[in-house]
Amino acid sequence: MNNPLNTIEKNILEKIAGISELPRGAYNIRVDGKSIGSSSTDDIQIIFKTDKSGMDIRVKPGTRHDHVHIPVVLSKTGHEETVYNDFYIGEGADVTVVAGCGIHNPGASRARHDGIHTFHLEKNSRVRYIEKHYGAGEGSGERILNPVTNVFMEDGSYMEMDTVQIEGVDSTKRITEAELKDGATLVIKEKLMTSGTQFAETEFRVELNGEGASTNVVSRSVAKGKSKQVFLSRINGNAPSMGHSECDAIIMDSASVQAIPEITANHADAELIHEAAIGKIAGEQILKLMTLGLSEEEAEAKIVEGFLK
Amino acid sequence: MNNPLNTIEKNILEKIAGISELPRGAYNIRVDGKSIGSSSTDDIQIIFKTDKSGMDIRVKPGTRHDHVHIPVVLSKTGHEETVYNDFYIGEGADVTVVAGCGIHNPGASRARHDGIHTFHLEKNSRVRYIEKHYGAGEGSGERILNPVTNVFMEDGSYMEMDTVQIEGVDSTKRITEAELKDGATLVIKEKLMTSGTQFAETEFRVELNGEGASTNVVSRSVAKGKSKQVFLSRINGNAPSMGHSECDAIIMDSASVQAIPEITANHADAELIHEAAIGKIAGEQILKLMTLGLSEEEAEAKIVEGFLK
Repeated sequence: MNNPLNTIEKNILEKIAGISELPRGAYNIRVDGKSIGSSSTDDIQIIFKTDKSGMDIRVKPGTRHDHVHIPVVLSKTGHEETVYNDFYIGEGADVTVVAGCGIHNPGASRARHDGIHTFHLEKNSRVRYIEKHYGAGEGSGERILNPVTNVFMEDGSYMEMDTVQIEGVDSTKRITEAELKDGATLVIKEKLMTSGTQFAETEFRVELNGEGASTNVVSRSVAKGKSKQVFLSRINGNAPSMGHSECDAIIMDSASVQAIPEITANHADAELIHEAAIGKIAGEQILKLMTLGLSEEEAEAKIVEGFLK
Repeated sequence: MNNPLNTIEKNILEKIAGISELPRGAYNIRVDGKSIGSSSTDDIQIIFKTDKSGMDIRVKPGTRHDHVHIPVVLSKTGHEETVYNDFYIGEGADVTVVAGCGIHNPGASRARHDGIHTFHLEKNSRVRYIEKHYGAGEGSGERILNPVTNVFMEDGSYMEMDTVQIEGVDSTKRITEAELKDGATLVIKEKLMTSGTQFAETEFRVELNGEGASTNVVSRSVAKGKSKQVFLSRINGNAPSMGHSECDAIIMDSASVQAIPEITANHADAELIHEAAIGKIAGEQILKLMTLGLSEEEAEAKIVEGFLK
């Protein structure tokens, strides 16, 4: 098969999905609103929706250690889209979903991708969801990403979300909502860096509805320049369950960071904990690296890199 | 001087202010909307407002280790009141304010006291503010307390608020707001227990506006029966400052507890931390005390008592 990707698209795919060629297995690559390549397998079916933009991704019960890539690239200024992807993960299946979005905006109009993802995890299924967001482009047009993730988890299912937004996204408003039945586990790891006048808001709502349901929401972020970040998380313990939420932020320059982690125990056997800390890089950490020969800027960059790793 | 207090009033004063007689020094004792005894001193002037219910309490600059008692008793069903007390604490003064409220509601109508307290702390002044809330009475009428505390803190001033509501208050909505200038410190310690169908909401807002301003907000609570508790705290770091907020709650029976501690850093040199934990009493703690001969109920009571001490 020919590689239908140009250099900019390859670079973006490398950044968000770790691929520069068409991937093996099930995939769909969406560029500027169109699929430029798609493939299903016996275990993972990709079916395009006919009533709106997006796909149904159906993973067969019992599928073992498989993966599906569905990266999105925007390379035209002025392109705005809302896409609906629904994932049906069969009983006992185990799958990794790689679903990033990269925007290369060359012009003065804004480019926006809103991805609405809904996951239905059947009993004892497992999903690892990796989502990288990245922006670039010499144009003055804004690069906007508003992901919505809805997760419905049946008994004993497990989901891990790794989301990363390190660079180049001017505005993001991220909403993640999940409902967990008996013994279901949701782990969320978010990494975020903003600079310039960027704005990022993250909102989590996790309903622990089943006995033994548990969640761990961990957010690490760095705010530079005049950027603004808002972190909201709501964990509701409605059954004998466990929830933990943690938000650590490094603040630099004239940035501002707001953390609002809400925990509600509606059941005496719900155990909920949250922690949050906002502060600058400790002076002694910088000094230590400077004695090893780094400049102050290099030391800061090193610490930020380590913090977001 | 004769003691103008009856037995019920004495009991309530003992509970909320640790006194069963008229106190020494500056004081005002308010029973059912009327002052039944009041005294100023050279250093602490109590002046009744003429435009509304309440007092101005003026503490002379440089006053050393003095105290003022202003307890409030409600012993009639159906009595509802809003009282405005303004405290002017002179430069360098050091004073303890004892300001509880007890409600003995013998009837079927509700009894309500809303105390609006405003503190103006001049430079380098220190206030310890003790506020105990207590309810009793065989009647079915609700006992309601809604305290509002506004605090304005000049450079280098220090305030410690100890608030306790252990028993008998059916509904409370507590609002505390503070603005801190350079080097000012605000320490808040809240202890709260609810049972039955009681409701308690606590809201803190602390603005760290000055260099070196700091705050520590610590709430410990126990929710029993079908009671509901909401804890909100907002700390805004608008200058090089430090803020810490902590909320620990024990949940029992069918109670519910919600914690929403918000921290916002609007300055790169603001260091803000919060922690919250909601959970039941650990099983091993109860077992340990039971091996010492306590019943399960006695063990629970002991642990709760220790937690709120």
